[in-house]
Amino acid sequence: MRQSSHLLEKIDSPRDLKKLHRSELPDLAKEIRKTIVDVVSTSGGHLASSLGAVELTIALHYVFDTPTDKILWDVGHQTYAHKLLTGRRERFATLRRHGGISGFTKRSESPYDAFTTGHSSTSISAGLGVACAKRLKNDSSKVVAVIGDGSLTAGLAFEGLNQTGDTHNDKDMIVILNDNEMSISHNVGALSSLLSRTFSASKLQMLRKEFGEFLKSLPRIGENVYQLAKRSEESFKTFVTPGMLFEAFNFEYFGPIDGHNLDHLIDILKNIKTMNEPVLLHVITKKGKGYRQAEQNPVYFHGVGSFDVDTGICRKITTDAPSYTDVFGKTMLELARSNDKIIAVTAAMPEGTGLVPFSKAYPDRFFDVGIAEQHGVTFAAGMATEGFRPVVAIYSTFLQRAYDQIIHDVCIENLPVVFALDRGGIVGEDGPTHHGLFDISFLRSIPNMVVMAPKDENELRHMLATAVVYDGPISVRYPRGRGTGAKLDKTLAIIPIGKGEIVSHGGDLLILAVGSAVSEAVCAGTLLSENHRIQATVVNARFIKPLDRELIVPLVQKIRHVITVEENTIQGGFGSAILELLSDQGINDFTIKRLGILDHFVEHGPQDILRSKYRVDAAAIIDAARAMLRPERNMKVV
Amino acid sequence: MRQSSHLLEKIDSPRDLKKLHRSELPDLAKEIRKTIVDVVSTSGGHLASSLGAVELTIALHYVFDTPTDKILWDVGHQTYAHKLLTGRRERFATLRRHGGISGFTKRSESPYDAFTTGHSSTSISAGLGVACAKRLKNDSSKVVAVIGDGSLTAGLAFEGLNQTGDTHNDKDMIVILNDNEMSISHNVGALSSLLSRTFSASKLQMLRKEFGEFLKSLPRIGENVYQLAKRSEESFKTFVTPGMLFEAFNFEYFGPIDGHNLDHLIDILKNIKTMNEPVLLHVITKKGKGYRQAEQNPVYFHGVGSFDVDTGICRKITTDAPSYTDVFGKTMLELARSNDKIIAVTAAMPEGTGLVPFSKAYPDRFFDVGIAEQHGVTFAAGMATEGFRPVVAIYSTFLQRAYDQIIHDVCIENLPVVFALDRGGIVGEDGPTHHGLFDISFLRSIPNMVVMAPKDENELRHMLATAVVYDGPISVRYPRGRGTGAKLDKTLAIIPIGKGEIVSHGGDLLILAVGSAVSEAVCAGTLLSENHRIQATVVNARFIKPLDRELIVPLVQKIRHVITVEENTIQGGFGSAILELLSDQGINDFTIKRLGILDHFVEHGPQDILRSKYRVDAAAIIDAARAMLRPERNMKVV
Repeated sequence: MRQSSHLLEKIDSPRDLKKLHRSELPDLAKEIRKTIVDVVSTSGGHLASSLGAVELTIALHYVFDTPTDKILWDVGHQTYAHKLLTGRRERFATLRRHGGISGFTKRSESPYDAFTTGHSSTSISAGLGVACAKRLKNDSSKVVAVIGDGSLTAGLAFEGLNQTGDTHNDKDMIVILNDNEMSISHNVGALSSLLSRTFSASKLQMLRKEFGEFLKSLPRIGENVYQLAKRSEESFKTFVTPGMLFEAFNFEYFGPIDGHNLDHLIDILKNIKTMNEPVLLHVITKKGKGYRQAEQNPVYFHGVGSFDVDTGICRKITTDAPSYTDVFGKTMLELARSNDKIIAVTAAMPEGTGLVPFSKAYPDRFFDVGIAEQHGVTFAAGMATEGFRPVVAIYSTFLQRAYDQIIHDVCIENLPVVFALDRGGIVGEDGPTHHGLFDISFLRSIPNMVVMAPKDENELRHMLATAVVYDGPISVRYPRGRGTGAKLDKTLAIIPIGKGEIVSHGGDLLILAVGSAVSEAVCAGTLLSENHRIQATVVNARFIKPLDRELIVPLVQKIRHVITVEENTIQGGFGSAILELLSDQGINDFTIKRLGILDHFVEHGPQDILRSKYRVDAAAIIDAARAMLRPERNMKVV
Repeated sequence: MRQSSHLLEKIDSPRDLKKLHRSELPDLAKEIRKTIVDVVSTSGGHLASSLGAVELTIALHYVFDTPTDKILWDVGHQTYAHKLLTGRRERFATLRRHGGISGFTKRSESPYDAFTTGHSSTSISAGLGVACAKRLKNDSSKVVAVIGDGSLTAGLAFEGLNQTGDTHNDKDMIVILNDNEMSISHNVGALSSLLSRTFSASKLQMLRKEFGEFLKSLPRIGENVYQLAKRSEESFKTFVTPGMLFEAFNFEYFGPIDGHNLDHLIDILKNIKTMNEPVLLHVITKKGKGYRQAEQNPVYFHGVGSFDVDTGICRKITTDAPSYTDVFGKTMLELARSNDKIIAVTAAMPEGTGLVPFSKAYPDRFFDVGIAEQHGVTFAAGMATEGFRPVVAIYSTFLQRAYDQIIHDVCIENLPVVFALDRGGIVGEDGPTHHGLFDISFLRSIPNMVVMAPKDENELRHMLATAVVYDGPISVRYPRGRGTGAKLDKTLAIIPIGKGEIVSHGGDLLILAVGSAVSEAVCAGTLLSENHRIQATVVNARFIKPLDRELIVPLVQKIRHVITVEENTIQGGFGSAILELLSDQGINDFTIKRLGILDHFVEHGPQDILRSKYRVDAAAIIDAARAMLRPERNMKVV
């Protein structure tokens, strides 16, 4: 870690990389690793996966002619070396900062970023689209999709493999399986154990022996259907290798090879580059490679905040308040103790969702389905039909993957599945692919679904207690990050479905807020009173669906000046639900301003900066209040 | 087909089935087939797949102890024999009729229907949920998922296989692959060609020989990485069988066996029933089995209207107007002629979406991705990055599967992908799983997305012409069934984005309608004028997003009595968009009634009956108009 950056300094594009001699590349890899560790230790980011892909990145840009040849990096969080080698070296210190470069690939950031990503498992499908387009244009340049073993568990990846291997069309496409034996957490599923059956020489010898004996044991052909049907059972199982799986999809399979051996990588990539068919290269890498702390704890260093380089220790905790994630995890434990019907389901995020303690206390009732949100929801629906109460913990943005399953498998039959949506609202540095800004809109339009959002981490606890005894689909969304520091009640209470609460009283203005926006509304209410002589009633709606008609309608009729606030798109969100309610009640004697995220995707940056910029904070409420009430105030002043 | 039903008549539940002697079962199968053909020939329905599954259904209920043992039928459209054997024989003639039994499995209809279905590929995930629940309850009864080879191409099915085969937990689960070598249309993808590599005795012999030679040719171990990496390429490819694929997922594989041989089916199911691990039984069946016309033309008889049993000919066409589907297909042909960037993408529905003519005229530009909506959308996004204009034709209800891909892969980067949503609105006899009642809500909340709906089949043509030259994501939704009979313009025109049109003028009432609701609004307008002295301005909004502010706002300000109409859920739909627009403009001096599907799932039945019942037809508009204007009218009358 003590090298200077004399090689990296000379590389402004992959053209410069190609000028280096092969023997210099290992030193370049070291320089890249040092740069990545230095920057991520201050900015935070996806460290382990980017460190693991350094040699692979160098080899790809060394062999292929980017950006004419297209590299599609799945998820895009392993691309820090790619960014350093493709003209973003000097801006690299701005990684994940507001206005700086993204932590993922982004087409608008660089012509070397072939596809915009953040969610997993899109690279094969998108890459195949690029490859088919190139074929139609008689463009023989190459397409490479780089996908991790974790991403491969998502159905989308399989759908892509299946079409790529369609024998009706020749698809010229290279898929690189970057196998580090984990996705974010450890991998689950059959595929994982299959990939771990690596194809070593000694293993091959053993398989050979086994299969030879099997061949000898085969009865003469012509036996009856049962023997024939049974045969495979007795034979092939231990023989199946990753290669066979991909060959079943008509891919030419190579590997596995050591993904940190640059010579091997470059030689094999050069060979593969000459082929014109679906090729899968299986590469074994180590997450966190080259930084001891990350190698030892790749889950922690998957996505990390700033840390001390020498010790690997996280630098600072700014508040004592627990995170919503932790409160969720602890409350799940509490609820599960007294209710053995409660099941927890996560899609490859036991750490991210706070379910590790639950998984240890109740291993039989904990299901990590891998990166497979669709399956996770339908699986939960199946459990619900048998009387269980599954709590499906999936980040807001990733639950978008299971939209149809929520409608079709859960809500049509009104099954009691609880959806716990962490990261609802603005998430910060992960940016546009990760903000959870649509869930209120997409969930509330589904019949039978109850939609909740707590004002703080204490209310989250009561909402979970409410959800697990509710007899139908119910969701609770809560923000990324630390709670408000609210005192946590020891006893969990059931909140009546559809009942909001008045948080503060005032006759000039009605602020209808939901979720994390409630604390902004309370803050705004105080400042409006202190500084602007505007007295606001602040309502914590709690429920986006069903809305508390009995509470809200009379307040609107009385106060007549209304502001709604939510950290969700303003199209079809909570504010729209309020408009619908008031319209259905035939009430139109009021003025209203809906605050929420206007019709844009939101860039990456700190949550507070983005909340301010996109006007879903206390300042925005105050401005809206003053704009709305200024005429009256002015009159009173005059 | 001339048997009486003396066996079937005695079966009120699977208990009665078990009283039959094995030798009687083939006759029972014939009786069941006759009943199915008779009923479907008058009611319409999914004929071919139900005929293909008759023996499998008999065998399953003969061997397993339903409903304690759970059978999960994927899609659920192959379950007519299942319905006949599980207490719905006498109601079977009500199949797909309003108030009658569903064409799919439905939990609320029978305890023998373990899961509610309609969309494909959910059975393994849901079945695994049931199996895990049973394990937790120490319930050793069995779970059987029956899935077609077409359904297996969807990622959801793979996600389910992957978790089922997870070696960390023993999953007691039986999957029956009902392989008829087609999904709805013919299968596509690598999987399809793999499954066709059936495991016959002669094939096995050949494979054995080939593999023996390979074994002999193996070099000594210890060679370098390239030889090792290359080896699989030279060896295994022809050796891979369906069994290996499923064994890669840790399933015990049996088959393939003849799915119409009841003796074989019953014997092997009895064996499998005793196992306690993931088992996959590969069964070969023939779609349409036993009805010659359906065997010969299974695509036509997949989902069919009423037909003459002797000839197989469709009974009646009630109108000369072309279907929206046909107009879409023909317009695609026209547009593609002059624009070689236009690509068509379908997810296993070339016939259903009307793209067969396109596929024949432009085979290189036509992509059937199989039942893989997620992949289809991301694939299209990839093509769009290379300058093509993909038109993704997916029914409204199935596009729900690709919600995240629309956001993440298309809209964030503002890629020019066209979404053609057939079956938007009430679809009729396929019922709650198939109505397209959410697309307006879920699409309009996504930034960058343009959302259109034509008033008739002629406008559909212009909207398509508009869409393929628009530089960003754009969608057009249109209803199932025949058009209005509008004259089709020869020349295609570009509609300015966000511009609606006034269809009729009147000063008493403003009806804002979109899509198929426009013709209802026009009809209502005429009747209101003729019968109720109410003069309505009818607006064809054309665009749900962006709304035509310049047109709508002044009209609302002038007329002040507003009705919105849409065939979509009323939560977050077109009417809500109008409320948002008017609220944003600070307009509140109006009364409004939003007509749309209230917050319920809609049952199956004829489109006109459901439109009337759910109040999105002309009569509903007239009632709403009279309720809204009655006070004034009454005053004038007085």
